[in-house]
Amino acid sequence: MGSYVELWKSLGMDIEKHDALLQSQRPFFKEVVSSQKNRPKKMEYFDSLVAGSHTTRIKDLANLKAAGNKIVGAFCLYAPEELVTAAGAIMVGLCGGANFPVWEAETVLPRNLCPLIKSSFGFKIGYTCPYFQISDLLVGETTCDGKKKVYELLNELSPTHVMEIPHNPDTSQGRTLWLKELELFKQQLESLTGNKITAEKLKESIELINNRRKALKRLSDLRKNVPSPISGIDALLVNQVSCDDNIQRSTSKIHELCEELEDRVKNGEGVTSKNALRLMITGSPMAIPNWKLHHIAESLGASIVVEESCSGTRYFNQFVSPKGNSMDDLMAALVDRYSAIPCACFTPNNARLQSISDLAKDFHVDGVINYTLQFCHTFNVEGVKIETLLKKQNIPLLRVESDYSQEDTGQIQTRLEAFMEMISAKTARRDNS
Amino acid sequence: MGSYVELWKSLGMDIEKHDALLQSQRPFFKEVVSSQKNRPKKMEYFDSLVAGSHTTRIKDLANLKAAGNKIVGAFCLYAPEELVTAAGAIMVGLCGGANFPVWEAETVLPRNLCPLIKSSFGFKIGYTCPYFQISDLLVGETTCDGKKKVYELLNELSPTHVMEIPHNPDTSQGRTLWLKELELFKQQLESLTGNKITAEKLKESIELINNRRKALKRLSDLRKNVPSPISGIDALLVNQVSCDDNIQRSTSKIHELCEELEDRVKNGEGVTSKNALRLMITGSPMAIPNWKLHHIAESLGASIVVEESCSGTRYFNQFVSPKGNSMDDLMAALVDRYSAIPCACFTPNNARLQSISDLAKDFHVDGVINYTLQFCHTFNVEGVKIETLLKKQNIPLLRVESDYSQEDTGQIQTRLEAFMEMISAKTARRDNS
Repeated sequence: MGSYVELWKSLGMDIEKHDALLQSQRPFFKEVVSSQKNRPKKMEYFDSLVAGSHTTRIKDLANLKAAGNKIVGAFCLYAPEELVTAAGAIMVGLCGGANFPVWEAETVLPRNLCPLIKSSFGFKIGYTCPYFQISDLLVGETTCDGKKKVYELLNELSPTHVMEIPHNPDTSQGRTLWLKELELFKQQLESLTGNKITAEKLKESIELINNRRKALKRLSDLRKNVPSPISGIDALLVNQVSCDDNIQRSTSKIHELCEELEDRVKNGEGVTSKNALRLMITGSPMAIPNWKLHHIAESLGASIVVEESCSGTRYFNQFVSPKGNSMDDLMAALVDRYSAIPCACFTPNNARLQSISDLAKDFHVDGVINYTLQFCHTFNVEGVKIETLLKKQNIPLLRVESDYSQEDTGQIQTRLEAFMEMISAKTARRDNS
Repeated sequence: MGSYVELWKSLGMDIEKHDALLQSQRPFFKEVVSSQKNRPKKMEYFDSLVAGSHTTRIKDLANLKAAGNKIVGAFCLYAPEELVTAAGAIMVGLCGGANFPVWEAETVLPRNLCPLIKSSFGFKIGYTCPYFQISDLLVGETTCDGKKKVYELLNELSPTHVMEIPHNPDTSQGRTLWLKELELFKQQLESLTGNKITAEKLKESIELINNRRKALKRLSDLRKNVPSPISGIDALLVNQVSCDDNIQRSTSKIHELCEELEDRVKNGEGVTSKNALRLMITGSPMAIPNWKLHHIAESLGASIVVEESCSGTRYFNQFVSPKGNSMDDLMAALVDRYSAIPCACFTPNNARLQSISDLAKDFHVDGVINYTLQFCHTFNVEGVKIETLLKKQNIPLLRVESDYSQEDTGQIQTRLEAFMEMISAKTARRDNS
């Protein structure tokens, strides 16, 4: 790490605190990720991305920045990376999945706020996230009350462009607003980079990013197999880390991983037995290294086969499909694609119910865990509708609301065990009848 | 009450549960409101509104309904009552200030949700609020995550029209969206009532409601006097109950009260001594009968002189001022007025900071209590900015986050006592220096 200290210092980071952060994370990675049995060989690359996320990748970004590239830090799937890339800038995901900086955020923010927001803010005010430090611009969005108000505070620390996302993108006025907000972000990027976003460049970026989404969808589709050829933790990890990597490189590495998994499928190999319970997780985003729920469930022998989540299908299940090559066509296609992400911030959000229903069938799901980050009102209340939906379809559901601490791990484990026993009993009854 | 049982039954209310509700409220009203010393005589009318809120007023509304009038139930200041009135309908505020139905709401909704939302929803599913029951249409707005998602559930129980409020009304796209949403609500009202909203009718309604707001502002301005001629509890009560009353009648009753208070001022009379600490409360809305914080503070001898709140200045400090008489002029004036309400749902919401700053001066405020309903993220996070603002202006601030239960009453009392002692000590130092 010694060789990176100067780099971190140049970014204004708090070296001592950052060391403590890295040291707190290392045993955790070993316990949760690398100790898993029967991992695909091609996960090595993604493990190396985790290992290099505060070192080699930051050096890469610093070199790109020195060569004149601008860096845009994002919090959310609604940040239109196609525009960022078309402007010749590099979009990175900001830190927000660790419990480490939460205490510091709570010296400023209310405690009754979601851990993701507190973690992000704590990383910023604690100077422990190199992605925050290296970004020339942060891009926020009005997807929830907590975030939108915290962006006001962040903007006092770093330039933060907030895109307004309508509450309902299906109305003509909602759509018009979104298009206008994309225009304004485009202008902001052009002014930041000095580069004009041409239709040609935007079309190229759309293809580039569609390709990464397609690779991730290919990976996801492989998990439909029984047994799944990859653990939920590993699949989640690929989703979490690839967004900070070079786009082309991560795309091809995801395809390499898929090839290995296809061989496994051909040979009938999986990471669990054929009889492992297959669970879907739906709900709030899981920023790296938030593997808590996956770790508990898979340690109990379940197989997490799909995440209806910002760290899952909501990222890669929709592509940008322009009807033509003009700038208007491309911008309209961006609105179409982004407004099709079924986030609970929308009202109503019926597309998400349909998505959960479809995924449950396609992935041969035995049960669903509705995961809510603590105090995340939109996903929490939408859970009521999901409960009604799944009851109708006779699919077992467990609702879990949790933060980033380890305090409730035992409690969640007990509830999950009971849930899995209940499903097994139900399945046995069905098999015997 | 006996004579109202048939009326309540006809509204589909749960008679037994409703009786329990009324019985739980009565001693509370006596303890908090009627036992206050030196009350203005003209408060009698507003006390009678409270007493008749589930009886005589509901009978009035039922008669109006029988005569063909439609009733629109609202949750929030952003529901444009001018349009409702212009359509010949009657707007009423829905129940949401009592702890009584919270437990029932929690059988459906997450516990980590603001008490106002849980109370409203509990009133609806428990059939204990006659205003919910008598309404032909509910009108919601996208002012916070909790409410907007709960409206989806309410809509399954009662027709609920949700108006989208932009996150930032100061952009041209935000303003355009709001105007369009007003148009849609207008159409909805016309279809509900069968009445066309003409420019003439709308102009009349605007005047009518401006007049009520002016009466409330007159009342508020009288509290600038030292000592204030009316308690905070009584002033809050007038704000809370007049919105469910006939508009003209409540307007003239507020003016009568103001006349009495003006006499008091002329005679140097007040409800407290001249030396009582003068406090502002700013923050989340206080629906009737949520007098908790006022009661604690005034029982300790403080004088609450202004509420920067939806149950205070945010309701009556802005008027609708059309530039002409055309429908376009009137609708534009509605957008202007409603977008000037400085709610924490906006980002940024600098107008609120300015308002707090101005009110603190105009009302000779010694200290500010920032009140947040538990889990109300927008007001809670905005509290950080208020803290910074007031620190600069050397105005003491106490932050209180609370729900509708009485569990934290002792704790709040202790904190308020300490806060008031601190202010007194500071004032004494200032006076001696």
